Amino acid sequence: MSLISEIKEQPSRIKYLLSSQRRNVERIAAEFRKRDIQYVFLAARGTSDNAGRYANYLLGAQNGLPLALATPSLFTYYKRPPVLKNALVVGISQSGKSPDIVSVLEEGRRQGCATLAITNESKSPLAQSADYVIDIQAGAEKAVAATKTYTTELMAVAMLSCALTGNEKQWDELSKAPGWMRATLKQSDFISQAAQRYRYIDQTVVLGRGFNYATAFEWALKLKELTYIIAEPYSSADFAHGPIAMVESGYPVFAVAAKGRVFDSMLQMIKRLRKDISAELVVISNDKRALTEAQVPLAIPADVPEWLSPLVSILPAQLFAYHLTRAKGYNTEQPRSIRKVTETR
Amino acid sequence: MSLISEIKEQPSRIKYLLSSQRRNVERIAAEFRKRDIQYVFLAARGTSDNAGRYANYLLGAQNGLPLALATPSLFTYYKRPPVLKNALVVGISQSGKSPDIVSVLEEGRRQGCATLAITNESKSPLAQSADYVIDIQAGAEKAVAATKTYTTELMAVAMLSCALTGNEKQWDELSKAPGWMRATLKQSDFISQAAQRYRYIDQTVVLGRGFNYATAFEWALKLKELTYIIAEPYSSADFAHGPIAMVESGYPVFAVAAKGRVFDSMLQMIKRLRKDISAELVVISNDKRALTEAQVPLAIPADVPEWLSPLVSILPAQLFAYHLTRAKGYNTEQPRSIRKVTETR
Repeated sequence: MSLISEIKEQPSRIKYLLSSQRRNVERIAAEFRKRDIQYVFLAARGTSDNAGRYANYLLGAQNGLPLALATPSLFTYYKRPPVLKNALVVGISQSGKSPDIVSVLEEGRRQGCATLAITNESKSPLAQSADYVIDIQAGAEKAVAATKTYTTELMAVAMLSCALTGNEKQWDELSKAPGWMRATLKQSDFISQAAQRYRYIDQTVVLGRGFNYATAFEWALKLKELTYIIAEPYSSADFAHGPIAMVESGYPVFAVAAKGRVFDSMLQMIKRLRKDISAELVVISNDKRALTEAQVPLAIPADVPEWLSPLVSILPAQLFAYHLTRAKGYNTEQPRSIRKVTETR
Repeated sequence: MSLISEIKEQPSRIKYLLSSQRRNVERIAAEFRKRDIQYVFLAARGTSDNAGRYANYLLGAQNGLPLALATPSLFTYYKRPPVLKNALVVGISQSGKSPDIVSVLEEGRRQGCATLAITNESKSPLAQSADYVIDIQAGAEKAVAATKTYTTELMAVAMLSCALTGNEKQWDELSKAPGWMRATLKQSDFISQAAQRYRYIDQTVVLGRGFNYATAFEWALKLKELTYIIAEPYSSADFAHGPIAMVESGYPVFAVAAKGRVFDSMLQMIKRLRKDISAELVVISNDKRALTEAQVPLAIPADVPEWLSPLVSILPAQLFAYHLTRAKGYNTEQPRSIRKVTETR
């Protein structure tokens, strides 16, 4: 039963990471500020790639840094890495072992870029290939489906962003995250009941936008890994550019609609899906206008600021995937066909 | 019946684009070479975003340029555009009308970056917001599902890459693309028969890697828009990091495995799916080792070079989506719920 205990230990892991790594992250940020960093070049796979999607929005909005997601095959199969002038090269990996991610960091170092590893294994090949390391200190993750390493990776990204701006108000908000997470996890029994309705679901789409684009991807990934349903993530804008054609009456759509700048656009899509197409909706939100449209509303605390909402909004999604896995009678600890550490080139 | 005629006119559109725009593209490339461009910042949605995925690999491998896919909501909803120092800002849009893509170009110009629009409408807002324009000259596209504007966008990207390197051998290869495309389109009747087998398919995954990562995305998008099945694209590496757990015996997997640097990794995945999981396979390839593993093999000419293969390998995918739409009895010209021009913010 490690998956549910790993889900539930997230608030304490986040709290520990914040206190134990703040000085290290501030020291790293001070080094980065001395360099002429013009953009971030980030390599990751799977769950860690979704943490990278969060970094894309957060470092853009808070730090003015454009972010390019690396295409590792250019480094490994094609052996034609791009010229990474003035890039901060970042690798995110729980195990720190995937050769393709390591090769991006090694190339970044070879080209004289600043390199940063965000990993749960501070002695891994990834950590050894980087100038700087943020150890997410999530403890051993035994379940194959990553949960606590995802939220600690998000936290590491958020801490880096705060350290780069040096905004004390944002550090204060960060310190409230464990409390918001604990409050959200109290819904586990409610979600266990709600998941029964989806015992025979075999496909869905998952919508999110802005900061919670990452949440949509990570919710979809947990559903695919654990419940074997096909679950495709979209920004609501990309969804409107074609894939919405798939949706017919009763089609299940999952959506993450936290309060903030993109809320109105998400609400508009949710209303269109409900009123025009009669879709079935599972909605994670902290705004009643979105929650009341859903057959299954999953609430997060009202006062979570948008930039931190991915740390909190993923929790009902993880619980939903866990309880749906049980409802379907599958193994929550060891999904078929995948291993904990996947080494791709 | 405009969709099938638009699919079939692609070779002649590509040929015309190559002859009519080469001088313009070379002039643009000469201007770009005068500037200190360190990376490409690219904004697009839907089909055009898939052309952007091709640009990500091609400009990386051939031109050493890292590429960041823009997150337009940072420009529109969040009003926190990143600092685009030394970026070439590119917008790709058939109609040139989507406000979010236009806003990225406008911001790029405001920050003093070089800006380029790739569009089918040379008087559109997107074209007007850019310093340089490549007019893809695809002619009016009447079917809602984009086909000829996709391949002409790919061609525009390939021409820009060749103009930046100035490699005459690559221009020669480009000039062969219309012939390879014509040869491939001759399979329309065979594909019409083959598609019957999938009359009752309701979901699939589409795999591609490297240059044909874009093809996997575009094939999946055509399937979703036209046949309303859920079709999720993956790189074979990301697929191995979790989603492969979904696949069980008989599950349909579509794959694009053109000869080249990533072929062995694609072949390994195809064999694993066939032998270990007994998946059902539709494979686009020019290598017999991949085609013989498939229940439905879709061949492209043997001598297409990998870097140009996306221009050719998308054609069997378009034909497959078209014929499957007819087999399912749906409207090929006007899918439900979507319009030709989608204006998102």
